[in-house]
Amino acid sequence: MTDFAKTKSLFHLPAGQVYLDGNSLGPLPKAAVARVGKMMQDEWGDLLITAWNRAQWMNQPSRVGDRIGRLIGASAGTVVMGDTLSIKVYQALASALEINAARKTIVSDTGNFPTDLYMAEGLIKSLDKGHELKLCEPDAVEDCLAEDVAVLMLTEVDYKTGRLHDMKALTAKAHEKGILTIWDLAHSAGALPVKLDAAGADFAIGCSYKYLNSGPGGPAFIYVAPGLADQVRPALCGWLGHEAPFDFDLDYRPGRGIERMRVGTPPVLQLTALEASLDIWDLVDMEDVRAHSIKLSNLFIELVEANCPDLELASPRDAMHRGSQVSFRFGNGYAAMQALIERGVIGDFRAPDIMRFGFTPLYIDAEDVRKAAAIIEDVMLNRLWDSTDYFTRSAVT
Amino acid sequence: MTDFAKTKSLFHLPAGQVYLDGNSLGPLPKAAVARVGKMMQDEWGDLLITAWNRAQWMNQPSRVGDRIGRLIGASAGTVVMGDTLSIKVYQALASALEINAARKTIVSDTGNFPTDLYMAEGLIKSLDKGHELKLCEPDAVEDCLAEDVAVLMLTEVDYKTGRLHDMKALTAKAHEKGILTIWDLAHSAGALPVKLDAAGADFAIGCSYKYLNSGPGGPAFIYVAPGLADQVRPALCGWLGHEAPFDFDLDYRPGRGIERMRVGTPPVLQLTALEASLDIWDLVDMEDVRAHSIKLSNLFIELVEANCPDLELASPRDAMHRGSQVSFRFGNGYAAMQALIERGVIGDFRAPDIMRFGFTPLYIDAEDVRKAAAIIEDVMLNRLWDSTDYFTRSAVT
Repeated sequence: MTDFAKTKSLFHLPAGQVYLDGNSLGPLPKAAVARVGKMMQDEWGDLLITAWNRAQWMNQPSRVGDRIGRLIGASAGTVVMGDTLSIKVYQALASALEINAARKTIVSDTGNFPTDLYMAEGLIKSLDKGHELKLCEPDAVEDCLAEDVAVLMLTEVDYKTGRLHDMKALTAKAHEKGILTIWDLAHSAGALPVKLDAAGADFAIGCSYKYLNSGPGGPAFIYVAPGLADQVRPALCGWLGHEAPFDFDLDYRPGRGIERMRVGTPPVLQLTALEASLDIWDLVDMEDVRAHSIKLSNLFIELVEANCPDLELASPRDAMHRGSQVSFRFGNGYAAMQALIERGVIGDFRAPDIMRFGFTPLYIDAEDVRKAAAIIEDVMLNRLWDSTDYFTRSAVT
Repeated sequence: MTDFAKTKSLFHLPAGQVYLDGNSLGPLPKAAVARVGKMMQDEWGDLLITAWNRAQWMNQPSRVGDRIGRLIGASAGTVVMGDTLSIKVYQALASALEINAARKTIVSDTGNFPTDLYMAEGLIKSLDKGHELKLCEPDAVEDCLAEDVAVLMLTEVDYKTGRLHDMKALTAKAHEKGILTIWDLAHSAGALPVKLDAAGADFAIGCSYKYLNSGPGGPAFIYVAPGLADQVRPALCGWLGHEAPFDFDLDYRPGRGIERMRVGTPPVLQLTALEASLDIWDLVDMEDVRAHSIKLSNLFIELVEANCPDLELASPRDAMHRGSQVSFRFGNGYAAMQALIERGVIGDFRAPDIMRFGFTPLYIDAEDVRKAAAIIEDVMLNRLWDSTDYFTRSAVT
């Protein structure tokens, strides 16, 4: 049984706040500052260039990838870190389209995070081969899986509503029609148990700075199914994805398996901060996280709905169809969120009217939820958003 | 006049070493550990998500880009940080090929760094429109500039030999033929004065972890000429390159000017380390760097050639045609470099026979050069490489 009091004690959480925005930027693991400082001083400072081998910086992307693999049901050697999620979307999609070259349709849904759609748009324009990005409504994705579809690309958990797709069922349906799948786990990794291998997912990508607490701009990850990676031509074929980078050949030869999805020099500082967080994750069972997350979010829904009639639940009521966040619709949501933040309840706002709250059992407990719900009630009951400066734009990402 | 004794005092340099590998990984600015630690604690730790605005993380890529711009002759608003050099090569090349869509040849040279060529290869395969990557000998580039060439893509300073291209002359020649230019400044930025605006370069890219001392995996930069950026369609169109990222539109609209070359969430830890280094760079005049670099490398060549007849100069003898490194050819170069590293002279080896030494006036002075040359003489005279374990592969990047 995961000891969540213990994990909570390992994060720096500002006094007087309830931080319900770990789905946007996870908090600082207390050990991270010293860990990064030590890496900078002892490795960068003292070992300098030799640290690439002596401090094992060179294989850090796959070493860390394997640790994340454990949290998303991916076997060793199928996950590697690097770049940003946008870049990893491009890599996965370019590879998948090339494998399924006879088909020209990419299916996604309107609940996908914009950058995934933008990167697809950009790739389609570059390829200039008549590909089409077809956006379905989230609950109609299955109906869109026709025989001409090359790739189904979805974010498992909707960043606005928290709606959870059924990865296993949709992947199976896609495969029946010869469609490859790309799953964006930005709001899944560290939020709920993901079973990539078991679901038969072809590609997955995700970021590390949300539930995985790697800090601002922490690197993304990419997963390619066992057996598939060796068939993939990386569109972004950088030198560290080369079979033998230090031969400095003029021609590219893809590295073994997932290694070929590496591109350039890995961000060692950011990866080291992530390692400090993964030390906490080592103490955690994802099934426990899920159980607690559901308890916390159900409690939150219950308290808010009981006391704030103006807030309309935007997330699925059934926890089985929800990730680890709860969203409410409210016309004055932007101002109300500002009022909440001023009172120490940190959620965020997504246009046009979504107030978003993330539940992260590693450092949020039932007492936090009760405290947050009481402050929300106070803000709503007393219309405190009326006094908020509409022009002070809150920080969001 | 730049005070190089002062700048040297601001770097952590391991005792007993002469570090001649700053062209691969620059050393640690002493202030960087505390700077990154403070950012992690006070901004990530305390401000959490609000730091994107309150600590100005969101505009860090262009703020830092402008500071690098000063070192490479780029006006404000033409440089932005992000990703890795490989990714930035891809962005620049994809954009340039689209502008010059009627032409199908990319000219580069055999002295280019492999990742630039790999990324070009990968893009050509993805585009599948009959583009060809033509590699000339470095001294025959001008002869390759025919009317069917879309893009001239060169690394200004050869990573192996230090040979320096004439950016201004080659850019002018290219433009005469309607060819766009992409300059890789990996071994130029912080090594010698670069005048991008004045040379009329169209695109430039570079990395920050060599002469600019940002630490392992620090972000790359990209420059797009004033006036050109707004005409460029970014192939890698991520959400932070969108005109209004926080509108979360489903359709991409490129941001203003260079902002559109941003892709995903910026690596704030790495950028903050870079800022600590740029504080040192603020004390520095690039013309002074160049003058000292030439003095140091000329002195090195003189001493080594006088005492080590087995080492054959691989770099241009004329400093005007050389960057800030000196390379020697030697059949047992790999083992000899191991022997040197054991004795505290840190250079590196590039297959098949290049021993490479970087000269970085910010923290290397004439005394260091004399010390290094004496140790090289000792190693060569006494054939100390014979005792080196050939199977202990040195760390290189």
